[in-house]
Amino acid sequence: MIFSSKLIEDAVQEFSRLPGIGRKTALRMVLQLMKMEKEEVDRFTGALSKMRHELQFCRECHNVSDGEICTICSNPGRNRSQVCVVENIRDVIAIESTQQYSGLYHVLGGILSPLDGIGPEQLKISTLQERVKNNGVEELIMALSPTIEGDTTVYYIARHLGETKVRITTIARGISFGGELEYADEMTLARSIARRLPIDNYVNVDR
Amino acid sequence: MIFSSKLIEDAVQEFSRLPGIGRKTALRMVLQLMKMEKEEVDRFTGALSKMRHELQFCRECHNVSDGEICTICSNPGRNRSQVCVVENIRDVIAIESTQQYSGLYHVLGGILSPLDGIGPEQLKISTLQERVKNNGVEELIMALSPTIEGDTTVYYIARHLGETKVRITTIARGISFGGELEYADEMTLARSIARRLPIDNYVNVDR
Repeated sequence: MIFSSKLIEDAVQEFSRLPGIGRKTALRMVLQLMKMEKEEVDRFTGALSKMRHELQFCRECHNVSDGEICTICSNPGRNRSQVCVVENIRDVIAIESTQQYSGLYHVLGGILSPLDGIGPEQLKISTLQERVKNNGVEELIMALSPTIEGDTTVYYIARHLGETKVRITTIARGISFGGELEYADEMTLARSIARRLPIDNYVNVDR
Repeated sequence: MIFSSKLIEDAVQEFSRLPGIGRKTALRMVLQLMKMEKEEVDRFTGALSKMRHELQFCRECHNVSDGEICTICSNPGRNRSQVCVVENIRDVIAIESTQQYSGLYHVLGGILSPLDGIGPEQLKISTLQERVKNNGVEELIMALSPTIEGDTTVYYIARHLGETKVRITTIARGISFGGELEYADEMTLARSIARRLPIDNYVNVDR
């Protein structure tokens, strides 16, 4: 594409660095910004700039945070005896959005993947060990991807917690709500049969 | 979605104002910006802010411009006797990107559409009349949408140019290069047969 304006060309160029944004889409965004009031554009660029410059990582759980300690860790209403271990902050957002979990989190920053050069030192595992040792954690809920890497990470963490009475659980795997049985993959279907629940239990969970 | 950070929430909120960007896509963009260097994010927001605050419209042709007169109108190598009339700046970008046109442009800012309240006063038609009268324009190339509104606009402009010897043409309609005949719409196909070209002419055009 050939632009007759350097201002537009630069803006399109910068926009097309973002994931999934080609030059045509970038141009559409830029033309939209052009139509917006100057104050609105200032608010847009201001919010992004402020986010990048001021965002921190929580000292406790490594979640993104507006201050030293995130709003979840500093909330006195949360259950401090439960810690949900997740891979990244997108997982925190997903679980928070269910509004069903009231414990704390621990963001590992990835999962063990020797092929990609990600070993235990690259993840926030040592701080998790300290939290379990010192902070009265009673249950670690492992909410990692149901892959070989995810399972490996769960086992690694479980074996390296040292002497502790913490209970380690993983989130349930099974057929999604509204999912059609025939479209489920074999692994999921096999596990969901092997770990079947008595009806009473099922009713209890739903209550 | 529930975010534990106001900084992220604000950034996602602002991003999702853009066309075609839902909250999930906005979050993906924001997380990408989070991973970028601060300097890169500053360059991104800087380019957008500068574009919005400094971009002008060319006094001559109403194209977007970095100064009072756009780079096309101020280029001495362009053919000043030809003016291509388009609806908006996206059309200028499209035609410039062919690198086949060396005349000037006139951006109307829309097409006549009484149902949407767009009459001749809402478009840059009077300045086009002046350009034709005073600036030695020999040909007006109408490159408007092949719709009823587009055709109406062409006829309106042609009838309101006053006494002038300017030649008015419209861009050719027909089957696209690489287009399959069977998939062309009936209107286009009918017109392409009615306005068929002698082979000589066709060969000349292609040379």
